[in-house]
Amino acid sequence: MNWPDAVTITEVGPRDGLQNDARILPLAQKIELIDRLSATGLARIEAASFVRAEAIPQMADAAQVFAGIHRRPGVTYIGLVPNERGARDAIAAGVDEVSVVVSASESHNRANVNRSVAESLAAVEGIAALCAEAGLPWAGYVSTAFGCPYEGAVDPEAVLRIARAYRESGAYAVALGDTIGVANPPQVYDIVSRLASEMPAEAIRLHFHDTYGRALANTVAAMQAGAAQFDGSVGGLGGCPYAPGASGNLATEDLVAMCEASGIATGRLPTGQAGLPAARQVDLPALLEAAAFAERLIGRPLEGRVRRASAGAGTPSS
Amino acid sequence: MNWPDAVTITEVGPRDGLQNDARILPLAQKIELIDRLSATGLARIEAASFVRAEAIPQMADAAQVFAGIHRRPGVTYIGLVPNERGARDAIAAGVDEVSVVVSASESHNRANVNRSVAESLAAVEGIAALCAEAGLPWAGYVSTAFGCPYEGAVDPEAVLRIARAYRESGAYAVALGDTIGVANPPQVYDIVSRLASEMPAEAIRLHFHDTYGRALANTVAAMQAGAAQFDGSVGGLGGCPYAPGASGNLATEDLVAMCEASGIATGRLPTGQAGLPAARQVDLPALLEAAAFAERLIGRPLEGRVRRASAGAGTPSS
Repeated sequence: MNWPDAVTITEVGPRDGLQNDARILPLAQKIELIDRLSATGLARIEAASFVRAEAIPQMADAAQVFAGIHRRPGVTYIGLVPNERGARDAIAAGVDEVSVVVSASESHNRANVNRSVAESLAAVEGIAALCAEAGLPWAGYVSTAFGCPYEGAVDPEAVLRIARAYRESGAYAVALGDTIGVANPPQVYDIVSRLASEMPAEAIRLHFHDTYGRALANTVAAMQAGAAQFDGSVGGLGGCPYAPGASGNLATEDLVAMCEASGIATGRLPTGQAGLPAARQVDLPALLEAAAFAERLIGRPLEGRVRRASAGAGTPSS
Repeated sequence: MNWPDAVTITEVGPRDGLQNDARILPLAQKIELIDRLSATGLARIEAASFVRAEAIPQMADAAQVFAGIHRRPGVTYIGLVPNERGARDAIAAGVDEVSVVVSASESHNRANVNRSVAESLAAVEGIAALCAEAGLPWAGYVSTAFGCPYEGAVDPEAVLRIARAYRESGAYAVALGDTIGVANPPQVYDIVSRLASEMPAEAIRLHFHDTYGRALANTVAAMQAGAAQFDGSVGGLGGCPYAPGASGNLATEDLVAMCEASGIATGRLPTGQAGLPAARQVDLPALLEAAAFAERLIGRPLEGRVRRASAGAGTPSS
């Protein structure tokens, strides 16, 4: 088997996690969570999403989040944007990097942003132009890349088409999202291998959800196809089995613990990010403390396995 | 990557699960759990352990369990035995197959059975002779094969020595146990590959615990080295983070769900088990019902991910 020497981890808890939780955290708590995450050695944090407050009230204070956090040198703070308006707001708020999202399945894209896939991709070109003007790197997520809550199976060719469109528009990376946690290892190996035949493996990122406990198995399969960039959400934040389509993210600390045990460094930076420090390690005990903090904020035990094992599963952890 | 067409699953919940839980179930509940598991399509069930009642009160009624269950044709009912006395009891109780256990680390073996590894292996020869006389197949577990709660790292050579001794004594299979859930995928691939260079891959079984969420990732790594026999525990029964050294088993339904999603059949029988039906599938919905039943018996939410996702994590499930 082939293993990367090091992986690049993007922490998405403050965005994907908090955005999908029923509880809306006060600004100061979001800022403290991000500041704690910044101190763990994580090199990349998706800190907020610049969406309409009416649509996602959890993210209404995205600009204030960026204004309030203590930016640690060497950490890339990322903002997700749904459209050009969001991109302008994100750039004005001082993000270091921009993320965009398009779903591989038409129904999910329609449910998510009320647009066709083609309309979303057209909007991406406008966002890309704004990022280029601002001198910011951007990456594109392909949601429901391994399965859709409405359509079931997703055609891998639909995933590849969006990935190609992203790269043609200038994305430095493409992130395949297993939005509902249904991916399986042979499928992941197949799709990542096909993607890696069209673009550098360094440009490929995976965003797994751990709904059925397969996120780390899928991570292993993606590594065999050459991938070395993975998303995680502290504590597994975002795992809300009640909300259809919003199921538990892979806990960052579970990913870090597996990599550490496997001799894989956890602080690699993506290719092409100049001016940043060399590879370093995420501090697992500090990350577990951040997970415990996130759990207290959110008010219920989170699903991350390392956190549960250390807290004693089933006991209140605060 | 290489994937097996089918896997052989051994359900160990009634033994490894119930043995390590604080709650001692009444005989009738154990029998009902096993009968429900028998109806799911599982071909192999480790039903009890023939140990001294003073040592493990959870298993005091092993013979009555075997006397009370409805034996379904085609299902192999297995009894674990610690010594010749246990083997005699198991054979008298009518087990279809015998399991023995020796730890790869001296301290764990001493803590477990108050014997040195060499003394345990000598006892295995006596058990093997009794099994041969009774015409029963037997398999040998190597506990703490990937890490020990007392010694930390375990020398792979110690694992291979025990595996060789088992095979020389006539074991049809060797099961490597990740007793505390610390195995990592590169390590699993390495050890299973070394084992597969000395014995047929069909003779290798893996027993993973999911303490840190790596059981399925380790399963994928073992498959790459040619393994196709895996243990699971319904619901993840046995996961008690409070008891040192007894951490959560891989939930059988999580294993079955990953295999199903991956196009891997779940009803393969081990080589050399004559007179049994051909490959079949485990019925995942029936297995999930058995997991819900186990959860009600044990009185707390279990850790299996598919069960948690279907029950709504954090909600009482009974």
